[in-house]
Amino acid sequence: MEKEMITTDILIIGAGPTGLFAVFEAGLLKLKCHIIDALAQPGGQCTELYPKKPIYDIPGFPEVLAGDLVNNLMKQIEPFQPGFTLGERAETIDKLDDGTFIVTTNKGTKHHTKIVAIAGGLGSFEPRKPTIDGLEKYEDKGLAYMIKDPEDYRGKKVVIAGGGDSALDWSIFLADVASEVTLVHRREEFRGALDSVEKVEELVDQDKIRLVTPAEILDINGEGAVESVLLQHNDEAKRMEVIECDAFIPLFGLAPKLGPIADWGLEIEKNAIKVDNTLDYQTNIPGIYAIGDVNTYPGKLKLILCGFHEATLMCQSAYQRIFPDKRYVMKYTTVGGIDGFDGSRKEAEKAVVKKIGNKQNV
Amino acid sequence: MEKEMITTDILIIGAGPTGLFAVFEAGLLKLKCHIIDALAQPGGQCTELYPKKPIYDIPGFPEVLAGDLVNNLMKQIEPFQPGFTLGERAETIDKLDDGTFIVTTNKGTKHHTKIVAIAGGLGSFEPRKPTIDGLEKYEDKGLAYMIKDPEDYRGKKVVIAGGGDSALDWSIFLADVASEVTLVHRREEFRGALDSVEKVEELVDQDKIRLVTPAEILDINGEGAVESVLLQHNDEAKRMEVIECDAFIPLFGLAPKLGPIADWGLEIEKNAIKVDNTLDYQTNIPGIYAIGDVNTYPGKLKLILCGFHEATLMCQSAYQRIFPDKRYVMKYTTVGGIDGFDGSRKEAEKAVVKKIGNKQNV
Repeated sequence: MEKEMITTDILIIGAGPTGLFAVFEAGLLKLKCHIIDALAQPGGQCTELYPKKPIYDIPGFPEVLAGDLVNNLMKQIEPFQPGFTLGERAETIDKLDDGTFIVTTNKGTKHHTKIVAIAGGLGSFEPRKPTIDGLEKYEDKGLAYMIKDPEDYRGKKVVIAGGGDSALDWSIFLADVASEVTLVHRREEFRGALDSVEKVEELVDQDKIRLVTPAEILDINGEGAVESVLLQHNDEAKRMEVIECDAFIPLFGLAPKLGPIADWGLEIEKNAIKVDNTLDYQTNIPGIYAIGDVNTYPGKLKLILCGFHEATLMCQSAYQRIFPDKRYVMKYTTVGGIDGFDGSRKEAEKAVVKKIGNKQNV
Repeated sequence: MEKEMITTDILIIGAGPTGLFAVFEAGLLKLKCHIIDALAQPGGQCTELYPKKPIYDIPGFPEVLAGDLVNNLMKQIEPFQPGFTLGERAETIDKLDDGTFIVTTNKGTKHHTKIVAIAGGLGSFEPRKPTIDGLEKYEDKGLAYMIKDPEDYRGKKVVIAGGGDSALDWSIFLADVASEVTLVHRREEFRGALDSVEKVEELVDQDKIRLVTPAEILDINGEGAVESVLLQHNDEAKRMEVIECDAFIPLFGLAPKLGPIADWGLEIEKNAIKVDNTLDYQTNIPGIYAIGDVNTYPGKLKLILCGFHEATLMCQSAYQRIFPDKRYVMKYTTVGGIDGFDGSRKEAEKAVVKKIGNKQNV
């Protein structure tokens, strides 16, 4: 069955801070936004890679946790009701005769839009995969590179591989959900938050997690789905062991890749999209903009605060492209307030004009 | 007596949000900043004109009071110990043979700097003055257009003129400090926060403020200092009255003026300074930059968030100008932390690398 087409004014690719803030600036111009992101949640790297780490260079925040910044931005854009296509990757783009675009994801979701704003950060973060032959045929059939819903593993036998925060944290979480958790790492040392490391130690002592190090998974077996993995102990004997399991979850981190966008006919330089920084961060294809870490221009700095500025100027240009005959006069939010698409209104308290007292002219 | 010369790496003219944030970005590059501002306090318009008004378009703040934004920025730049020359206006600039500059204020304070960053907002906000002949000779001699220290008026007889928040709020404040407060306004209606209007009404009822409306001050008299003002009641009789006083404070608001900077040989367009936006927001004079509302370029938006971006790119360019042979490699604050000039250090908690448990290899 064909899915329904999503329509929007500005299609933003990438739900990191820059993409999110673009929704706000577009909203001030009464433009509707929809965001596609390959990850399951908004926030990009901030949510996926370092939600609990402080950032010190967001203007006005002496210190802010990356996850809190994303939460604040989500709250800030709420009145403008953006749509989201999450867990899907923008795959192909078609330019229609009227200058609009159709962007289709890897899962076939189609988006019809007047403007495309690529805010893809360092690219889509794709999981690093183990080198196992025929890996693909088990994907989504017991093999997963990230955990979208831990409930999928309730009562199951799970093998997790990896030595970083993700492997530690998910082992801890699944210890209470899965029927068996085996954590495999090719070294004896783990790298993660002290809390997590200590918690895993505890759960290993309580036999809630089976820890196998140094070791690695060499093969997956099963008819149509994962039934077992082949583990090699990395000791001198190189002893092999078959571990029966329902799920194998290698958590080897995410690597940024520009991905399918690299084939859209955009000018690429140093793995980033070249834009015109003299006006609006537009690419070589009119109507497609690139903002934030994904773009490059002379003097480019890959900073969140620069993405905010770029998103803002992009929206002005998008507005001109959509309404070539209208002249937009910028209103300061302090003066004009904010009108949400949901009918909400925020505004500064107005000064009152009032005649004072009776004792005047004495 | 000649004042001592202040020396710095970057001299910032204007202590609004853009100028303040420049201190932070310069600090990350280990460059020292000094700020000149004509106003008595940092914060520019945010502090002077609308400290209690919410701003909705600062990224990451669904709503922030202008005064709080300034306080946050002051806290953010604290580790980088900026110097301040407040209550003085940058008047003249001299370029030395070695490419550095000396900037002198209207009070003769001299600043020797490698880089000048003009972050002057809409210009220096200069008080609107009443049209009274010979006004200048009473300036700082009982006549003031803004109140720097209310203690100056303790026990004095004060006449305030104006119908806005400043006139209301200072009348309220001085009612407890001065021996007499007369508030004069040429209309009967005041424009201000409801609180302030009501409080003035109360104080008028309690005879702590004498309110005279509609009326205006036509003349000032006194030998070398204000001794009285001549008031005209704007009723049909146009009755005149002499009010004895030690101070006359017309609070008619502030009007932005580019001021003496307009004569520095910079390219000016639409009352703003033209800059090169393709790289670093530098003006036509190498070593002088213009950032924030004071500059103009194609597509310019006078938004605080744009000033933050411009300040950041300016600092990178300034660094290259000061150290032409060094190559600066940007470090993310999340990764590298912040080293204050005061010896303080902020950084994200590091991951631990640790061998786990004894039960492995079972």
